[in-house]
Amino acid sequence: MFARARNMLVDVHTHVYLPRYANLMRARTKAPRIVPSKDGKGESLIVLEGRDSGRPVGGQYWDRAEKLAFMDKHGIDISIVSTANPWLDFLTAADAPPLARELNDDLEAYCATGPSISSESLPGTLQRFYGFGLLPLLPSVPTSEITAIIEQIGKLPHLKGVIMGTRGIGKGLDDPELEPIWAAIEEKGLVIFLHPHYGVPDELFGDVENGHVLPLALGFPFETAIATARFILSGTFDRHPGLRLMLAHSGGALPILSSRLASCIEHDPVVARRLKHDARHYLGMLYYDAVAYGAPELTMASAAAGRGPNYAASSRQGVKTEGIEGWSALGSRRMMFGTDHPFFPPVPGVADTEAKWQSVTENLAAIQAVPGWSETDKEGVRSGNALKIFGLA
Amino acid sequence: MFARARNMLVDVHTHVYLPRYANLMRARTKAPRIVPSKDGKGESLIVLEGRDSGRPVGGQYWDRAEKLAFMDKHGIDISIVSTANPWLDFLTAADAPPLARELNDDLEAYCATGPSISSESLPGTLQRFYGFGLLPLLPSVPTSEITAIIEQIGKLPHLKGVIMGTRGIGKGLDDPELEPIWAAIEEKGLVIFLHPHYGVPDELFGDVENGHVLPLALGFPFETAIATARFILSGTFDRHPGLRLMLAHSGGALPILSSRLASCIEHDPVVARRLKHDARHYLGMLYYDAVAYGAPELTMASAAAGRGPNYAASSRQGVKTEGIEGWSALGSRRMMFGTDHPFFPPVPGVADTEAKWQSVTENLAAIQAVPGWSETDKEGVRSGNALKIFGLA
Repeated sequence: MFARARNMLVDVHTHVYLPRYANLMRARTKAPRIVPSKDGKGESLIVLEGRDSGRPVGGQYWDRAEKLAFMDKHGIDISIVSTANPWLDFLTAADAPPLARELNDDLEAYCATGPSISSESLPGTLQRFYGFGLLPLLPSVPTSEITAIIEQIGKLPHLKGVIMGTRGIGKGLDDPELEPIWAAIEEKGLVIFLHPHYGVPDELFGDVENGHVLPLALGFPFETAIATARFILSGTFDRHPGLRLMLAHSGGALPILSSRLASCIEHDPVVARRLKHDARHYLGMLYYDAVAYGAPELTMASAAAGRGPNYAASSRQGVKTEGIEGWSALGSRRMMFGTDHPFFPPVPGVADTEAKWQSVTENLAAIQAVPGWSETDKEGVRSGNALKIFGLA
Repeated sequence: MFARARNMLVDVHTHVYLPRYANLMRARTKAPRIVPSKDGKGESLIVLEGRDSGRPVGGQYWDRAEKLAFMDKHGIDISIVSTANPWLDFLTAADAPPLARELNDDLEAYCATGPSISSESLPGTLQRFYGFGLLPLLPSVPTSEITAIIEQIGKLPHLKGVIMGTRGIGKGLDDPELEPIWAAIEEKGLVIFLHPHYGVPDELFGDVENGHVLPLALGFPFETAIATARFILSGTFDRHPGLRLMLAHSGGALPILSSRLASCIEHDPVVARRLKHDARHYLGMLYYDAVAYGAPELTMASAAAGRGPNYAASSRQGVKTEGIEGWSALGSRRMMFGTDHPFFPPVPGVADTEAKWQSVTENLAAIQAVPGWSETDKEGVRSGNALKIFGLA
């Protein structure tokens, strides 16, 4: 254990493939799978068969000591780790539930047996690792099996949420079949980390070879935006206002399209009548990581997060206009630092592989440069909000 | 002619289906087509067969007097009109070029024979209508036929640009076959209005009935973002820095994803090596309508438009950070008021159909509320930028 005098840094977007999961992928003959790299050095992860020859994977993904070394290098005190995509989506309905249980127990042990930390500003000690559990979210898994695993996660003291893909149990987040699952997650007070995996169809990106740039830079944030918009349009927040969803990559494309979404809904009375509030109200009920790589981007996301109360049905007749800085300051309380580790490592030959990761330094610099955020707001984004939202302090 | 003492209002995003075009759609037996409405009142436009029963269309689309009435109601002095999607995309390679010529001549007459206007702040008079011409952008049309029509448009005094869909001549805006077309448009000094039509595949929006909300609110802005990102990645701006592209709907999803795009490119050296500059530099070479329905959205788009110079290769070693308000003020010069008329009319039974259109008042209010824009910047967005960029003053 070590003690911290300065303010803390908490990473809410950081991934693992636990050893049991990595072994499962090594045993597979089709994607997602882990194979020996073609250059004979190490291993590669193939996420989609045929699309690529794999990205290098190694200890950063499964070795807790390497995650800790990354954290120490970047001054990260606490990581709330989650399994990287594609989670259990490729398993059968028979295999997924027992594996989810085992991986949740593995992750609890990963956190519980790891180092702890104390801070002058907090009573007692905290672990350096907490986690998001896995659910067997597959079409043929009985709902009762899924809610039983929500129960399991609720009892594991270091698991504070669940990571969820955008397909829910196969039909998306507007699927009425998800109702008992939302209810169970809400009741346990778990945070849902909504994360993309499927993107949009490759043909939209054309014939020119652009590597993974367009699927990652655009496909992922589009997927998150669609899933969240469908979640909002389903009225789930009206039925479960206590649900806590944290959106990957600062909500992707959704924040900048939220006024357009509200306008399109208002011009479609059938849809508008289903919802209690203007669409922008619901963006103020969401949480967002601060993984957007730029200060204007964080300003937009936090303004969207903060202006929600202005768009409650009760204030519709006279929308308040506190202005962007006020909205952004209020919205900062729903935003939390993240790194997306171990993705986006320094590129050999381009960046100094011994230096700090640019993906981390850029996100920290972006937080520092949001004009509407006070020093207290920034500290909140770096640590305080996560400590509170995940019930750690 | 009437004289204006106050500052002007110029609408750069306003659509028509000219009578010749509407008649063509009436004669068709499959989408896009215009059919008698099912309720026996007026006509309906079916854009995609099977997806919908059509949206009501009427004089707002083809009658210049109705466009003028709309403009007068909202204080719009000048409209730079463009044919609405899907343009000529559904025609054969034999039919499209002669029809493009005829429609360009029609649009020239629509503008030239319309009313004129004078302003105390401008010498001489202006017409109240200018236009974007049409090109026969189809795979089998010889490039020389397309460039000949660019020549035609260049000679029509009231046509100041071309409207273009995201598919270019079929393969998207990163198609090397577009090279002579970019060169011809650049040489004529025409503004390209890049506008979406195809969205993303419907299955991404799921089974729940949400009308047109998701394709319009998300699909359109995603399409614009993908097309522009592919255009940027193709290096066209490095070869044709004088090209002027104006993005519909304030660039859609692109501005908020532009730092993520830059980061993904930097982590993919093969792609990064093709480009002279950081991706964000190219966003500063684009123009944007101000059709985003909210001030934070305009702030994000204008910051993305204004920070471009900071990301030139020459400043890469020490990126300047003037802050969001400075970027936003600089970027305002690339933004121009628009309405998207005649789409999004007031909904009978929901809004007062005699009142001003909410889609217009919201976009004007958004311009007024951008914190980094001075009164001069706002006047620029409402009129000055368009007058300058389209060569009217």
